[in-house]
Formats: sequence, structure tokens, C-alpha cells
Amino acid sequence: MSHNTFGHLFRVTTWGESHGPALGCVVDGCPPGLHLTEEDVQVWLDRRKPGGSRFVTQRREPDAVRILSGVFEDDRTGGQVTTGTPISMMIENMDQRSKDYGDIAVQFRPGHADYAYFAKYGVRDYRGGGRSSARETAARVAAGAVARKILAGVTIRAALVQIGPHRIDPARWDWDLTETNPFWCPDPEMVPVWEAYLDGVRKAGSSVGAVVEVVAEGVPAGWGAPIYGKLDSELAGALMSINAVKGVEIGAGFAAAALTGEENADEMAPGNDGPVFSSNNAGGVLGGISTGQPVVARLALKPTSSILTPRHSVDEAGHAVDIRTKGRHDPCVGLRAAPVAEAMMACVLADAFLRHRGQTGGGAFHPGATPERA
Amino acid sequence: MSHNTFGHLFRVTTWGESHGPALGCVVDGCPPGLHLTEEDVQVWLDRRKPGGSRFVTQRREPDAVRILSGVFEDDRTGGQVTTGTPISMMIENMDQRSKDYGDIAVQFRPGHADYAYFAKYGVRDYRGGGRSSARETAARVAAGAVARKILAGVTIRAALVQIGPHRIDPARWDWDLTETNPFWCPDPEMVPVWEAYLDGVRKAGSSVGAVVEVVAEGVPAGWGAPIYGKLDSELAGALMSINAVKGVEIGAGFAAAALTGEENADEMAPGNDGPVFSSNNAGGVLGGISTGQPVVARLALKPTSSILTPRHSVDEAGHAVDIRTKGRHDPCVGLRAAPVAEAMMACVLADAFLRHRGQTGGGAFHPGATPERA
Amino acid sequence: MSHNTFGHLFRVTTWGESHGPALGCVVDGCPPGLHLTEEDVQVWLDRRKPGGSRFVTQRREPDAVRILSGVFEDDRTGGQVTTGTPISMMIENMDQRSKDYGDIAVQFRPGHADYAYFAKYGVRDYRGGGRSSARETAARVAAGAVARKILAGVTIRAALVQIGPHRIDPARWDWDLTETNPFWCPDPEMVPVWEAYLDGVRKAGSSVGAVVEVVAEGVPAGWGAPIYGKLDSELAGALMSINAVKGVEIGAGFAAAALTGEENADEMAPGNDGPVFSSNNAGGVLGGISTGQPVVARLALKPTSSILTPRHSVDEAGHAVDIRTKGRHDPCVGLRAAPVAEAMMACVLADAFLRHRGQTGGGAFHPGATPERA
Amino acid sequence: MSHNTFGHLFRVTTWGESHGPALGCVVDGCPPGLHLTEEDVQVWLDRRKPGGSRFVTQRREPDAVRILSGVFEDDRTGGQVTTGTPISMMIENMDQRSKDYGDIAVQFRPGHADYAYFAKYGVRDYRGGGRSSARETAARVAAGAVARKILAGVTIRAALVQIGPHRIDPARWDWDLTETNPFWCPDPEMVPVWEAYLDGVRKAGSSVGAVVEVVAEGVPAGWGAPIYGKLDSELAGALMSINAVKGVEIGAGFAAAALTGEENADEMAPGNDGPVFSSNNAGGVLGGISTGQPVVARLALKPTSSILTPRHSVDEAGHAVDIRTKGRHDPCVGLRAAPVAEAMMACVLADAFLRHRGQTGGGAFHPGATPERA
Repeated sequence: MSHNTFGHLFRVTTWGESHGPALGCVVDGCPPGLHLTEEDVQVWLDRRKPGGSRFVTQRREPDAVRILSGVFEDDRTGGQVTTGTPISMMIENMDQRSKDYGDIAVQFRPGHADYAYFAKYGVRDYRGGGRSSARETAARVAAGAVARKILAGVTIRAALVQIGPHRIDPARWDWDLTETNPFWCPDPEMVPVWEAYLDGVRKAGSSVGAVVEVVAEGVPAGWGAPIYGKLDSELAGALMSINAVKGVEIGAGFAAAALTGEENADEMAPGNDGPVFSSNNAGGVLGGISTGQPVVARLALKPTSSILTPRHSVDEAGHAVDIRTKGRHDPCVGLRAAPVAEAMMACVLADAFLRHRGQTGGGAFHPGATPERA
Repeated sequence: MSHNTFGHLFRVTTWGESHGPALGCVVDGCPPGLHLTEEDVQVWLDRRKPGGSRFVTQRREPDAVRILSGVFEDDRTGGQVTTGTPISMMIENMDQRSKDYGDIAVQFRPGHADYAYFAKYGVRDYRGGGRSSARETAARVAAGAVARKILAGVTIRAALVQIGPHRIDPARWDWDLTETNPFWCPDPEMVPVWEAYLDGVRKAGSSVGAVVEVVAEGVPAGWGAPIYGKLDSELAGALMSINAVKGVEIGAGFAAAALTGEENADEMAPGNDGPVFSSNNAGGVLGGISTGQPVVARLALKPTSSILTPRHSVDEAGHAVDIRTKGRHDPCVGLRAAPVAEAMMACVLADAFLRHRGQTGGGAFHPGATPERA
Repeated sequence: MSHNTFGHLFRVTTWGESHGPALGCVVDGCPPGLHLTEEDVQVWLDRRKPGGSRFVTQRREPDAVRILSGVFEDDRTGGQVTTGTPISMMIENMDQRSKDYGDIAVQFRPGHADYAYFAKYGVRDYRGGGRSSARETAARVAAGAVARKILAGVTIRAALVQIGPHRIDPARWDWDLTETNPFWCPDPEMVPVWEAYLDGVRKAGSSVGAVVEVVAEGVPAGWGAPIYGKLDSELAGALMSINAVKGVEIGAGFAAAALTGEENADEMAPGNDGPVFSSNNAGGVLGGISTGQPVVARLALKPTSSILTPRHSVDEAGHAVDIRTKGRHDPCVGLRAAPVAEAMMACVLADAFLRHRGQTGGGAFHPGATPERA
Repeated sequence: MSHNTFGHLFRVTTWGESHGPALGCVVDGCPPGLHLTEEDVQVWLDRRKPGGSRFVTQRREPDAVRILSGVFEDDRTGGQVTTGTPISMMIENMDQRSKDYGDIAVQFRPGHADYAYFAKYGVRDYRGGGRSSARETAARVAAGAVARKILAGVTIRAALVQIGPHRIDPARWDWDLTETNPFWCPDPEMVPVWEAYLDGVRKAGSSVGAVVEVVAEGVPAGWGAPIYGKLDSELAGALMSINAVKGVEIGAGFAAAALTGEENADEMAPGNDGPVFSSNNAGGVLGGISTGQPVVARLALKPTSSILTPRHSVDEAGHAVDIRTKGRHDPCVGLRAAPVAEAMMACVLADAFLRHRGQTGGGAFHPGATPERA
């Protein structure tokens, strides 16, 4: 993770501002021979793009991706495949509504990156948040689509588990439901609650936070590299880099602080393909290495700072101002975070897989099995 | 963050196992000319070392550090200073109690890294947890001592804010108190509560989790490098890499999910040295860049897996076993995590400072001031 | 240097194949506030682009660059400046002559990357050399144009000093001359010699190698970071990464092997701004750190493998074939290497400067001056 | 390659000064399960250590290595093996002859890193060259010993091919001979020439440069990662980082500049395990990827700057001084460079192998064979 690049063997570099001509990413280190077309990427971008319901920004972006390099259609292989060279993907910005940025150009929205970018760089592209805009996350989703190609056998899904003060009941979890409501909600009883609540937030010109849970099933044991490349450490860094995220937890997470050792220990029994665990407080990671259980992470998103109620602030000249944000915006940025969290999970896992394969050959040692070394 | 190294310009590589001859670190990229002696490092190691109270492991380690390179005593400069070359520090292991590791050698403790290391590597140093032991954190603390030398004007302190189900009241926060009790507790009313609670846990041979808060005051605006080198992202990765940590949050953290945009916005007013903020829900970081407010992070630690009550598990041969941990151990590993959290905060900030200075010259732009460029 | 990215604080990622839709680069870590327009980049690309004389490939590419991110036109600053965010630049491929790649698609040209890419990846974009084409160097030149903006006061120039067996005489060196002949030749007496020689090579459908010298003047003392980030080590890696380069030397280079210590020592005398050196066998670098003298490197390029005379080879099916390359090609790829060598020198120096500023504050200590620390 | 660390998956960090208490390295990313003892490392260190003949420095160092971490003696595996965790190795400095450093402490030897370190850092450990001493290369050799464990089937050897003006004749090359003379000379007719020549240099208190050739046989096709992680680019950076090296070339190297395309093309014929090449001008690398041929590199070393004849220089106060170096030193540092060059070749190849295995699974595609993907 350094500036605008993350990953080690599977590396993603993103670029672009909200109101510039385009944004995109370069995915480097992808294995060769994977089937990859623009459609394979587009399907994931379509899940992220705004404009789908009244609960997200009304900015209309087709978010059509172009793959500019790193793939090749070879008649003999029967389809377009990755070549092992960098995959450059570009998404043009289409709906940069022309308007006067006068106030935003010189004022700092409280709770927004405006001031921090100014303090660091002295110059900032204030149009639509510039580089700090959530539009950057489209590039992550495109990279995640490539990562998924590497992760055969791994299923990565995200759901919202809390909006404002309203939490779902995990006992009612239904993954299929997340695809049928605009909230990525897995709890049927929470859908109408969130709908009513968010309508109120939206009409008040207010905003509210959320918690997203992202789960990767089918991850074999052995991925992740202690001590400073721990799988959970990489995940924490990757998820915290998503706009508006203020907290990340793995497995039991903060709740683990209140558990005893007896409660927290995920007991093991012999199994055919590694141990069978009685619970998953670890969230699929022990000592920074995957255990074969589902990898479970949650991320907390703050409410967006773009609200109608005026807030006290300052401008570039150092004067006190009152600021309120007009125009389209998201009442709950968490609604668009689920596909992004999935993409970051996919990128981190793909990188962990390749690194594990590099160091060890890629297998796992199972209790009772004869160890084989690559 | 990659394997056993973290940082970009200020880079720390740690090595060593719990029961090997020694452990240590190499700190690379340190600026030259900083006064640094072994005593400067030892003072921080002494805060971390076990054996200080009945609530931590009774392993007795002097944890005496030796600086093997990277410093030079020049008569003309009047003291030992860093030279800009790598600083190698070593701590010998003295109290590796000789014992029969028979069971531990082939069994996997539930909730411990035992199984994960076996699955990944096929071979593991099972003595005292090997590389996954919390002894590795001594090397982090040594590195943190160097980082603090770079951070003139920055004060970094940590406290425990929760042990098991018992949380402190932030309204009673007293930093001085943290130095006078074995719990790093800042709340006078919570000290006796925790003491009684932990005595019970200890006598039961059980363990419990905790939450640590670490705060850096005096960090100027402008540190941190979006998008994937965000200050909060780097912190999340660094803190999550500490043994037993299962969650990290910045500022309001998970509580931000339940806030509205109006509540969450830290309003700004004109100030002499950057804006004055009305609150610090952001935890000192916006858009991944420091704002000049205190940088505030919290980390949740799970209970240690070393408990007396037998748990079901498996052994290397794939057989079911019952396992219980005898011998010295920590009822709450959180008690030793505060100095480690401080050290990681220090390392991340020192690295962020050097990178910021590299890209921009090191200053910050303040509203109303004439921008100066380096 | 890793896969398709190089640099540490000033980082360049390139992408694109010879006959894909486009190629480009992402430049990350650039300081903010530098004036940068597409024209600033285009002027350097125009120096590199083919089609300028009968001695280079007749492929006609406008090589028009678009800057897609990382710059901002702020009315108040009076011009377009860098913002500190990643600068994405794209060059569309226009002149991919449609043709039948039948033979090239399945045969490996001796001395070409064809076979190596196949052996590694199993699939390769064979059109025009794909990723291994010299077209990739356009992206390096674009990045170098940004690097030059950072290097105020540094002049970077390259010249050819040898083509085939014909070497220039350094005593006749004239930098101005390099701009007035198609060979980047600094020696007036060698221009007609090379012209006649290359006409013969070209008409024979043959090719020949060359040596390029690149010199950076105005580099202050103190840049470069021992031991594995030595300035000369970084330069060697960067220059060796250019297509067709088989050797790199600094200062006296291979000739130093035949020198005595007395001959090789660049003596020093007191000067106003650091020592005055009697010679520059070191090529401006001692111990991996710049000395204030001009940084001098030379790179040897092999002849291109695209020649008319048939050569024995194999095809993908493992059969023996005879192969000869028809169509446009370069009789001496060295003719196009000078601007690329300059660009790589610029990128390495810009990165070294930013890293030096990060670790030390950016200054240099001069004998006799009172040391000042940043 | 960054500061004191090099490599990507197989990463080496070195530390230590010439006259400090010790020096060493941390090798990270090593595969688990490789047999590794201190003796395995010592054998290579013994080849490098000074004191072996009258042609190298008379400093007497046992260079006894201790392995402090990363290996484990497991009764069940029948020997000490790597565990996948960082391998810390330390060599104590024993023979730091106590003496008055008065002049060296404040004067800069021409052609030495003295001045450059001062200019960069303002402070330097002047004792024995401090960090810039060739003693650092012992750590490289230790790391190389680990790298060789990974490279089963690969043979890495180095020889001197030139000392001063005297070059060997490749037609007389005898690898066995290199082990029987103090010059690593493969040419029986050159041994007496070099002996007489170096005796003269030594008696005159002078010094002279050399050229070393290092060859790796048994490297399969497919290693190396274009564009900026090319195998030859990595080698160039690694070899140029060795003390006193001023030039690096691969295969035909600088001589390739004078070749025609017809001469340079290494023709291919069908073979059982990849093509059979008619020559090896490429030095085993095409497009930055190994071809299956021997990887051949040469490095030019300058003469050491420690000579008896006085040279003009300056001191820290900026005054003109005359400087001559008394005491033990090497008349030709190239004599000790062969084992170091071998070690760097080994480290670069081990890293390339692990990265190749990470991205692709580790195999190679051979013409005529059915491609298998990992």
C-alpha cells in the first residue's frame, strides 16, 4: 500500500478525479491465460454504479469500462485471455454537470477531505471532491473483477448489517435477499425499517452511516504472510482506504474484547480437508494466516459530509463561513460500499494467493495428511 | 507492509522467535544526526516487558537492547547520533524455561496461530509460539523508540479503555493515572473494578479481551498520502498486525455508523495555526491526511487462547485431542499492548512525516496564510 | 523496480502493447504545484517519435499525449499545475498497419523476446512485439517529462558515442550538434561516417548496435541512498530495463578495470559550493551518492533482431523454421534510445531527490560550511 | 532495491559498519522446509573472507556466522530446516585494530565514499569506511548461501576475466582452475601474469581494477518479469550495488554495440527441453526473461582509493590537504568480488524464481509441448 498503488504481486494502481476526463486503474502481476473481457468487468461495475435508486446520488454515469492492454484474443485459445502484462482499464466521466463551483472552490466542508488536501498540497481539484471522490472506487471494482478471475473456488459477498442505529439480526441472514433490495440487506425484517428510515434522512437533506460485512468463502488455509503482511492486516489497510470508512474488524472484532478465552476459542475437530471448526470468532484468520474458514470482515462508514443543514467552517482566506451542500448526493454512502468492499477483499486475497504460491508453492498442509512440498 | 517489514521511508524489519537465541529489528531510513543511545530505547522496552505485576506473564526477561549499527559517537558532536544507515537492535532471550514441549509440539491450540502456521509452512517452531509469540512486539517497541526521536513535538500515549465488559468513562480521563496502575487505566473509578475482575479471570485460569486507545497529539496537518497510503489506512494495517488484535477504529469509529452527517461533522473556526475544530469525530484524519487534530485510534484485542479449561482440538496426525495450557501466561494480553500500540503509531507517523517531506518539502498550507513551497 | 512500476517516491507505472488501442503511464508521487501541460510532455515525445529520418522505422505515429488526471487549472494560480495526485497519461496507437501476422504469430525470432514471453506466459500478443515493443518507451519519455519539472537546475542530455564499430572522439564533443543530425552525434567528424555506414546497413536489411551516453549536470551532492538504493545501482537497473540494452557503465565504467588507483582518483580542491574535482572517473557518484559532479552513464544497445537475412529458429509446435523479418524496422535502435535514456535518468534523479529530501530534509553538507539540518 | 533492502519475495536487508560490534542480514520470504545450518552458510563466507593470500587485505576476521532466527531443529524432520520466518544472521567484527583515526576522521579520500556520505548525512562513521566498507559484502554472501538452497539445479560460479590491462582468453576457460589460485582465474596462462603484475602493484602501494564474470547454469526459461523487473535489469542493479563496481553487462554486453543483427542473433533449433541455441550473445536473457541458456553477467570494478601515493583533497573544514592511505588494504578489490557477485546472482535468481512461481505457478511452456497451467 503506497500512495495510489496497493498489493505486492497482484498490484493495483488507480488514478483519476471526479470531474476529470476519465478515471481508471492498472492491474499488474495478473497470471496469464485467464479469460477476461470487458463484459466480465462491466458486470461488477454495474453493481456499484450510482443512479439505481432514490437512495443514492442521482449522478448518471454509464461507467463503461474499456480494457486498453494486457489481454489478447488469440484465435487458437478460443477467447480473450490475460497475457501476464499490465491490464489498463479506463472509465470515462460523462456526467460532470457543468456548474459554478464558486463556494466549494474556496470553502472547506466540515468532515470532508477538502481541508486536508488543501493543507497538504496547497492546490486541489475541488470539482466534485477531485481525487477524494467516491468515484475513485469504480477503479477498485474494476480491479476486483480481475482479482475474482484468479480466485477460482472463492465466493466473495458483502451485505449491509447496520444503517444508522438499525442493525440486522444475523439469525435471519439470507444472502439471496441482498440482490433484491437497494440496501444490500440480508435481513427481510430490516428492509422496510431501513427504507422508512432512509426516506426520512433523505428528505431532511441529512446523511447517516452504516456497517458493511464482507465474507469470502472457499479460501484455503495458508494464505497471508506474517508478521506485517498478515492477511487481516492487509485487509484492514485495504478496507480502511475506502472512502468514509472509520473502522474495520475481523471475525468477532470489537466484541472479542468482552469475550473470555473459553468463549472465543474456535474449537477444532478432525475433518477431511483440514479441521472442522465449531465457531468462527477468528473470522477465518489466525496469526495472520487463513485457516480455511470463511474470511469475515466488517467496516464502519461515517455519514457523508454533504448535508443541507449549514455548518460552521472556514475558507481558504481563513475567514469563518457557513456552508451547506446543495445538489445530488448520497444519504448513506454505505449503500454503495458493498461492491467496493467485495472488490478490496478480492484484490487482497488474490495477492495473498500469489504470494503464498511464490513462497511455498501454493498448497496447504493438512493434519493427518502426508506433507507434500512444491 | 510486507512479510516482516513495514514502512516506506522509515522501514522496520523484525525477526526472532520466542525461544530462539534472540530477537530484534533493523530500522532503515532514519534521518541522520538524531541523538540515540541504548538507554533511549531501553526506557520504552522497560514499559512493555512482562513480569511487572501479577496480571501479566511471569516470564522474566530483562529485554536488554543492544544497538549494533547505525549510530556513531563522534567526539565533535558531543554524543552518539544516528548516521542515516540501518540501525540494528538485538534483544537476547534469557528466560526460555527448559521444558518438555511434547504436547504443544504436535497439538493445535484453538484460537492460536499454531494450526495456521502448520497449514502454511508444514514446519513451525512450536516453542512458546515461535514467531507468532507476543515477544516479537519487543522489536516493535525498540523501533518505536527510534521513531519518537524523529517526531519532535508529537506526544504519543496509549490507555486501556475496556477490559472484558467493563469500559471506562471518557469524562474521567486522566493521562497521568495511566502510569500509576498496572492496567494503563485512565479512569480512577475503573481501576478497582478491573483489578477485582482480572483477579477472578486469573484465578480461573481464564483470559479476557480488551480495547486500547492510542492518541498522538501535536501531529501537524498534511501527513498521509492518499489513496492507498492514507494515514488511517496505514494505521489500521499496522495496528491490526499486533498479536491478538481483531479490530481497529479511527476517531468515532464504529459509532460513526449511527451518527448523522450533522452530528459527525467536526465544525471549523478560524485559528492561528490552521482551523480550530469543535469536535474530533474524524480522529484527526480526513481523506487519509492529518488535519492537525489529535490522531486517535482504538484497537480491540481478543483473549489469549492459553487457558486452563480443556478445549477440543486436533493434532498434526489428524486425531481429536483435548488441550489445556499450563504454565505462565497472560490473563489479558491487552495489558501489554499499550506500549506496542504507541510504538506502531510512532512508526507510522515517522514514516508519514518523511514521505510528506519527500513529496512536498514538509510544510502545511494554512487558510489565510501565504502559501510557501519548499 | 517491480514488474511494470519503478521508483519509490516518484513512481512510474507503464502499460500497453505495440498494437493495442493505446499505451500510457501513471506517474505517482509527483510534488504538487508544478506547472504541467500536455505541451510540456509532447515536446519530449516528439523527440523520440519514429518517422523522422530514413534511419528509423517508417511507422508513423503522432504520439499525441493526453493527460487524464493529476493536474488542475485553477484560475487563481494562473495555469495548470500538478495536484500531488497520480498523473495518468495516454497515447493512442494510430498506425497499426493491418496485416497477416501468420508466421510471426507462431515463430520465434532469434534474439527477440518472442520465445521468452512464450516460455513464461504461454500466451503472447505477437503483434508488433506486443509488450516487448520499443513503443513502450514512449510512456517512459512522458514520465521523464514530468520528472524534469521536479529537477529545476538539472540539465539532462544524451548523445550517441558509438554506432557499430565507429566511436566518436570525446575531444570533439559538441552538445549543440546532437540536435542537428539524426544520430544524436556530438562529434562533427563522425556524422558523415555514421551516415554512410548506416545507409549500408539499412540497404542490406541488416542492423547494428550502439552506445549512448547520458549526462546530468547540476545534480547536487547527497542524492542516492546506500546500500541497495545507490544512485548508480538505480541507474543501472533503470537503463538496463530499456529495450535492447545489454550493458551499463558509470563514469570510467569498464575502462576503470584497467586504471590504477592513482589514475582513477578524482582529486579534490576547496571550492565555494563543495569540492572542485580534477576529473570525473567516478561519473558523479561515490558510495552510491552523488558528489556534485555531472552524473555520467553509458548504455550499450544490441542490434535489433529484425533483419532480412534468414535465421534458423523454431516455432510453437517445436519445428525447425527459417525466419526473416519483412517490413519497416530500425537499422539501429540506438538512434531512438537517446531520449529514452534521458527520461530514465530524469525519473531516477527525481526519485532520488524526493527520497533524499524525505530522509534528510534535502540539503547537503559542504566542507567548511556550518552544517544546517532540516 | 531500496536503501538497505533488496528483493521482492526473497528479500535481504543488511546492516552493520566496518568497525562496529557486528554486521549481518535478515533474509525474509525464504520458503519453509529447506535444510539450513550455520555450516551451510559458513562455507561460502570462508570463500570471501580476507587474509587468504598476500594479495588481499591482512585484516584477519573469522567471519563466523550465527543464525539467530528462522530455522528450527525438529526431531521428526531429521535436521534443521527453514520455517518460512525471517532468517537473521550475524557476524561479529573481531579485528578492528585500535588506532588513531585522526586524519581519516576529517579528511576525504579521493575516489572514496568519504565525501559523499559527509555531504549527504553530515555525520559518518569514518572508522574503516563505516557502512561503505566492503565488509558489508559478507552479509550479502550469507544471504546468497540461503538463496542457493532455493535454487536446486542451478550452478552459480564467478571468475575474474581481467586484472588491470590483462585479460584472460576465454578459449582457455577452466572452471576448476578458479578454485586453485588466489585470483579466481580460469585461464592457466594468465595466473603467472596476474601474479607478477599484482606483486608490482602491491609493492608500489598502488591498486588496480578488475572485471568479474558470473555465470548461472541450469536456470530454466521463464524467470524475470518485464518491464521494470527484467531479470537483467535486476541483475544490473544488484551487481552495480557491490562496492567499487562501475559497469555491468549481460551476455555480449558492450561488445554487442559493434555486432550486426546477423552476428548477434542466437539461432535456435528444436530441443527436448526448449530450443537449443547456437550461441549466447543474449547472456541467457531476452526481453528480461530467462531463456534456459546460462545467465552471464560481467562487472567492472575500479581500483580501490586506498593508495600510498599522496593525492590532493579537502577536509571537513574546507581546507586543501594531501592524503595517503597507510595500513592494510587490497591492491585489487576484484579478488574478493567473485563470491559477492555469485551471492548477488543467487539472490536475484531466487527472488525471480519465487515471483515467477507466484504469478504463473512456476513452470515454463516449451515449443511442441502441451501447455500445462498451474
